[in-house]
Amino acid sequence: VFCLNPSDHQHLRYNPLRDTWVLVSAHRMKRPWAGQVEKPPEEHIPRYDPGNPLCPGNTRANGKVNSHYDSTYVFENDFPALQPDAPDPGSDQHPLFQSKAARGVCKVMCFHPWSDVTLPLMKMHEVVKVIDKWAGLVEELGATYPWVQIFENKGAMMGCSNPHPHCQVWASNFLPNEPALSDRCQRSYYQKHGEPMLQQYARQEAERKERVVVESPDWLAVVPYWATWPYQTLLLPRRHVLRITDLTTEEREGLADIMRRLLTKYDNLFEISFPYSMGWHGAPTGPHLKEDNSHWQLHAHYYPPLLRSAMVKKFMVGYEMLAQEQRDLTPEQVSAETYPCENPGLYSRET
Amino acid sequence: VFCLNPSDHQHLRYNPLRDTWVLVSAHRMKRPWAGQVEKPPEEHIPRYDPGNPLCPGNTRANGKVNSHYDSTYVFENDFPALQPDAPDPGSDQHPLFQSKAARGVCKVMCFHPWSDVTLPLMKMHEVVKVIDKWAGLVEELGATYPWVQIFENKGAMMGCSNPHPHCQVWASNFLPNEPALSDRCQRSYYQKHGEPMLQQYARQEAERKERVVVESPDWLAVVPYWATWPYQTLLLPRRHVLRITDLTTEEREGLADIMRRLLTKYDNLFEISFPYSMGWHGAPTGPHLKEDNSHWQLHAHYYPPLLRSAMVKKFMVGYEMLAQEQRDLTPEQVSAETYPCENPGLYSRET
Ligand SMILES: O=P(O)(O)O[C@H]1O[C@H](CO)[C@@H](O)[C@H](O)[C@H]1O
Ligand SMILES: O=P(O)(O)O[C@H]1O[C@H](CO)[C@@H](O)[C@H](O)[C@H]1O
Repeated sequence: VFCLNPSDHQHLRYNPLRDTWVLVSAHRMKRPWAGQVEKPPEEHIPRYDPGNPLCPGNTRANGKVNSHYDSTYVFENDFPALQPDAPDPGSDQHPLFQSKAARGVCKVMCFHPWSDVTLPLMKMHEVVKVIDKWAGLVEELGATYPWVQIFENKGAMMGCSNPHPHCQVWASNFLPNEPALSDRCQRSYYQKHGEPMLQQYARQEAERKERVVVESPDWLAVVPYWATWPYQTLLLPRRHVLRITDLTTEEREGLADIMRRLLTKYDNLFEISFPYSMGWHGAPTGPHLKEDNSHWQLHAHYYPPLLRSAMVKKFMVGYEMLAQEQRDLTPEQVSAETYPCENPGLYSRET
Repeated sequence: VFCLNPSDHQHLRYNPLRDTWVLVSAHRMKRPWAGQVEKPPEEHIPRYDPGNPLCPGNTRANGKVNSHYDSTYVFENDFPALQPDAPDPGSDQHPLFQSKAARGVCKVMCFHPWSDVTLPLMKMHEVVKVIDKWAGLVEELGATYPWVQIFENKGAMMGCSNPHPHCQVWASNFLPNEPALSDRCQRSYYQKHGEPMLQQYARQEAERKERVVVESPDWLAVVPYWATWPYQTLLLPRRHVLRITDLTTEEREGLADIMRRLLTKYDNLFEISFPYSMGWHGAPTGPHLKEDNSHWQLHAHYYPPLLRSAMVKKFMVGYEMLAQEQRDLTPEQVSAETYPCENPGLYSRET
């Protein structure tokens, strides 16, 4: 008999949140890398920079002045991709030239008054304030908008153009592609199996223990069985929670703790301030608040771009863009590799 | 009345090949860029480098020696993501942990014996040889494999680790996500409208003329109405053609000509050897050769990463990964901008 050794033989894995497959070809890590290397993240970021438009008291590109904030700070994006008043494009008769109105708001949220901290370097109560503000924005914007996307682009490698710790919140009058797909997949799983997909998944992963990165009584972070990015993780509560607004005080504290632990592991992995894009997905809002959304489970996706080291990215290019996503090591190899690094302070900037 | 000015107001456009929407927020080009800048592509590439594993006569990582080829040259990828003999992973009972066998072959194809040329700098008859070899590989591998993906990653920015002009061909025992989705969309359009989607689309674009980049009696390259990457193009024949193997001798010559013109425009745009990932999509092969695939139309997608200049990429990150793709200028702005650059030789390396 010829048995599958997942670290030597390629295979496909099913992503039930997107109804797609990923090609897992772990033996590809053996190839030498002669391609592009990245600049490591900036190490010496001043705590306050008079020229940085995100610092307290500074003036932004459009002349507006930030308050002297000492916690989180939210303001309207000065170059919003979504504005509340865009007109309707009208409709072309032809089915191949279809457009629709897009309306919304884009906000920026600074996590902390200091530029030289990141979430894992902030104090517990400071991270709880970030979570409370996230919930506050979903509450406020979700009162009318069907989708409120909270996301953080961290690091220049992920298109972030300012080192000050911040995230963005884009609310739209439409359900974007990704949440629409996730909604469809979770709904049909629930109809078939009578339990929210991701609640069942969290329980399974907690039992199997193969892909867990960090866990606590209320939360779990795993490298999902179907991860596409090498160090991708999925962070989710164990209890059935529809939206970030539904988290209890204890769950918010637990979330602050597990986020700090997860992000400390990320930073320790290659001993740099780890780049990623992350964001929250929860049940849709606005008109959907009145609907039954029992199939939904709140979760955050973390998508870090690195593959081999602080300086070598995974390139999701030709085959991945045109055919199918492909990964070069198994999710199980990754969770094992990140485990030994929980030791906090192995990598830490002074705060 | 408040009218839509597509270069000032965001709106959504429908991609009928993927059944998704793209957010077009043209006013975002106004924001200043303080983020990551890329290294421009290497300018001085030696025609022959004794250390380059893709040059004629050289030895590769696994000890194999390239022939002294003087045209195209095909060999097996030394670190293939797909191998013909991978065992079946067997099946987990649980619906959230599904895997499948993946088998296939990965080939590399050098376009030319010289490292210092690219397709637009090659002679017409040399490009025709590349096209003939593409068709030959689809014929050969498509005899058994349901999908043969031809793709080119060009430039270090697109994860290409060798400047020698080459592409890759990955054939698989499964229909990957992207072609499966495209197949579904083209099929249902054909059922509804009685004409292949992309044949109708080519005719419409040729009449509307707003997004055409280059055209010839047999071929058309447009910035699609639903383009996500800033300078994305779609290259397609006007006649109904299912697969690259079906192209006539004249159509192959016409293709060589239009590819050279399109890629010359790309190179001229920022006066660098333009980076991109490109690839061909045609009707599925192997067991699908016997089926009716009239809904398919052969086409190539070009996905260049740049946005503002030779050194500033479009980052498809947070919002794009978690919610929906977003572009910062309209497709119409791009096709107008690339038009004046057809003048060949404005940018050209000596050959
Ligand atoms: O096969 P190459 O050129 O070494 O590798 C490149 O193309 C592959 C297929 O798109 C990607 O999986 C790799 O991430 C990329 O670096
Ligand atoms: O809004 P920012 O941080 O200026 O811009 C960044 O995030 C956006 C949302 O993911 C992307 O569209 C941009 O390409 C990226 O550079």
